[in-house]
Amino acid sequence: MTNKAGLPLEPGSTIGILGGGQLGRMLALAASRLGFNVHVFCPEENSPAFKVAEKSYAFDYDDSQALARFAQATDVITYEFENVPAHTAAYLSAKTPLYPNAGALKVAQDRLAEREFLISTGISIAPFHAISCLEDIERALPDISTPSVLKACRLGYDGKGQSIIKSAKDASDAWTKIGCVPAILEAFIPFEREVSVIIARSQSGQMVAYDPGENKHLNHILDETIVPANITVETHQKALEIARDIAQALDYVGILGVEMFVCNSPGLEALYVNEIAPRVHNSGHWTQDACHTDQFEQHIRAICGWPLGGGARHSDAVMKNLIGEDYFQWPHFAALNDHSVHLYGKVIVRPGRKMGHVNRTIPRKSMPKT
Amino acid sequence: MTNKAGLPLEPGSTIGILGGGQLGRMLALAASRLGFNVHVFCPEENSPAFKVAEKSYAFDYDDSQALARFAQATDVITYEFENVPAHTAAYLSAKTPLYPNAGALKVAQDRLAEREFLISTGISIAPFHAISCLEDIERALPDISTPSVLKACRLGYDGKGQSIIKSAKDASDAWTKIGCVPAILEAFIPFEREVSVIIARSQSGQMVAYDPGENKHLNHILDETIVPANITVETHQKALEIARDIAQALDYVGILGVEMFVCNSPGLEALYVNEIAPRVHNSGHWTQDACHTDQFEQHIRAICGWPLGGGARHSDAVMKNLIGEDYFQWPHFAALNDHSVHLYGKVIVRPGRKMGHVNRTIPRKSMPKT
Repeated sequence: MTNKAGLPLEPGSTIGILGGGQLGRMLALAASRLGFNVHVFCPEENSPAFKVAEKSYAFDYDDSQALARFAQATDVITYEFENVPAHTAAYLSAKTPLYPNAGALKVAQDRLAEREFLISTGISIAPFHAISCLEDIERALPDISTPSVLKACRLGYDGKGQSIIKSAKDASDAWTKIGCVPAILEAFIPFEREVSVIIARSQSGQMVAYDPGENKHLNHILDETIVPANITVETHQKALEIARDIAQALDYVGILGVEMFVCNSPGLEALYVNEIAPRVHNSGHWTQDACHTDQFEQHIRAICGWPLGGGARHSDAVMKNLIGEDYFQWPHFAALNDHSVHLYGKVIVRPGRKMGHVNRTIPRKSMPKT
Repeated sequence: MTNKAGLPLEPGSTIGILGGGQLGRMLALAASRLGFNVHVFCPEENSPAFKVAEKSYAFDYDDSQALARFAQATDVITYEFENVPAHTAAYLSAKTPLYPNAGALKVAQDRLAEREFLISTGISIAPFHAISCLEDIERALPDISTPSVLKACRLGYDGKGQSIIKSAKDASDAWTKIGCVPAILEAFIPFEREVSVIIARSQSGQMVAYDPGENKHLNHILDETIVPANITVETHQKALEIARDIAQALDYVGILGVEMFVCNSPGLEALYVNEIAPRVHNSGHWTQDACHTDQFEQHIRAICGWPLGGGARHSDAVMKNLIGEDYFQWPHFAALNDHSVHLYGKVIVRPGRKMGHVNRTIPRKSMPKT
């Protein structure tokens, strides 16, 4: 938000964050660095972000009294996850400016809305059909062909709510597996790698995109992001252009993550957008140790009406997630003096739980491969 | 501290910080990044570090009940300022490990003890006499000569507790000005610049020194630190060696700041130690944006028994303090994309008050001047 005179939000103002996980925690640390106060709202007691916030609200997202107090105490509100209930966002934004805007949230919460938005923006995506019932899958398969992927429209992340259909006989199991909910059936694009672009857009429309990172997954969860991505200069430029087009079309304010598939097959586009995330993104954590201004500070700057910081990369980087028991490797990584350790203060280690990450930085030698 | 098995302190442990100013705040942010919880003890309500800590203790340093609760709740304790009362440090360290150690605190709290320690370690310092009364000054002046500086032994910082003696007739006024307290009369060294070395020493004796920074003062308060300092490779090496000797002699754990005068006059040493600070130091703030591991994280690593991080400088840097009304220049600096803004969350702007700092980073071109 800007204040009434159109000036940026003053340090000493209070930023509200919905969601108290590691992304909220790292946003809070970045906001504190700039002199802001931070309040965190999250239903779960002992949320990681609570421990670094001036004030915590451990209430349900439906608790309108608690939400009202939160809105009253804050000058601008943001969120760390895209599944903020629509009515919560609407309630809060009527009282206090909320960034990124409700339109971005709506698009990102529903895969069908997301696909329709991307098509309307002229962005290449994999062919798909909307699915409401098992029969829809059977009708769509001849067009989409196999292998294809059935993806629930809502609440999917880290491979959850997805099922691969290798042949027509998998349709029924896939439909059951995703919970018989509205979905899309998507053609499988034979991609050679996945990249993501993390882009910031300010209230004045200024945009700063970070260099694309290349993502490696393990068990459907992001394992590593490598920067620079092993792509051509043309693909690099095209990826940034796509991210800019999306941010512009959403009249977006804050950090936006855009995941894309890179193809090299004849007759296909070079890039297909797979997913957009209206928030700071796991594949942007490398910016903490390799860029002048990282994604967390950039997001805070944007929502507060500040100019964006420099996004140039001073080092190459490899970000590695510490998932579940990987966490216990922290002493190993702490002893490597080209690695930076980031731990989230989570008390219980569970399989698949994101416990921390490490950034390896490498003196920058070259521009992206041509 | 290390735990009973001699292993480093686990993330999720709680770090206690004495003092709630900007240094405590930035230590807290660094500790949170590594997954630690932070408790802050400071007599002043609304201390900047309180807002980013899990728990705050706004009690007097003489309140033994509050200190006992603080010690009970924390796994290791450190401090952001060297004037922690000796009995407070002794009380706490009997219950919970306290770093840097009591010896370092004792030396740094008293200029006479500091000078005696430096001499015993073989470090060059300006000639001085111990002063207990006005007559001591009169007796010492023929030896120390003028101009010279009268410095109170205790509680001096940012030029406070100091008076310049230009000729013998200034003695009485100087003695009155510093409050007629134990002092040293120090010869004025014709120095060409001041540099400081920020060095970390771990519990295992590992040391990482940052490149020397060159300090510029305004109204006796640090205004800018420029890195690299404009000194020869020999002086650079000698400065690091002095800092290492001091850290070693104190069996020091944590970040130590060592201020030195650089001389070029025939017959004088190249370097004289002016002051040591047993804590993170204003002249080390540039490390936040120009080094792999900054002084704040390095201090936390050291006191927790972790290995130290990499101290290499990936960029050149100029740190500028925002003092008093300089604070209102934050929008100017926020708009420069080679500057990083750090604000301390202080509500009231007062002349001489440190409100924040900005780090300008410059792609690194060269090794220090030869």
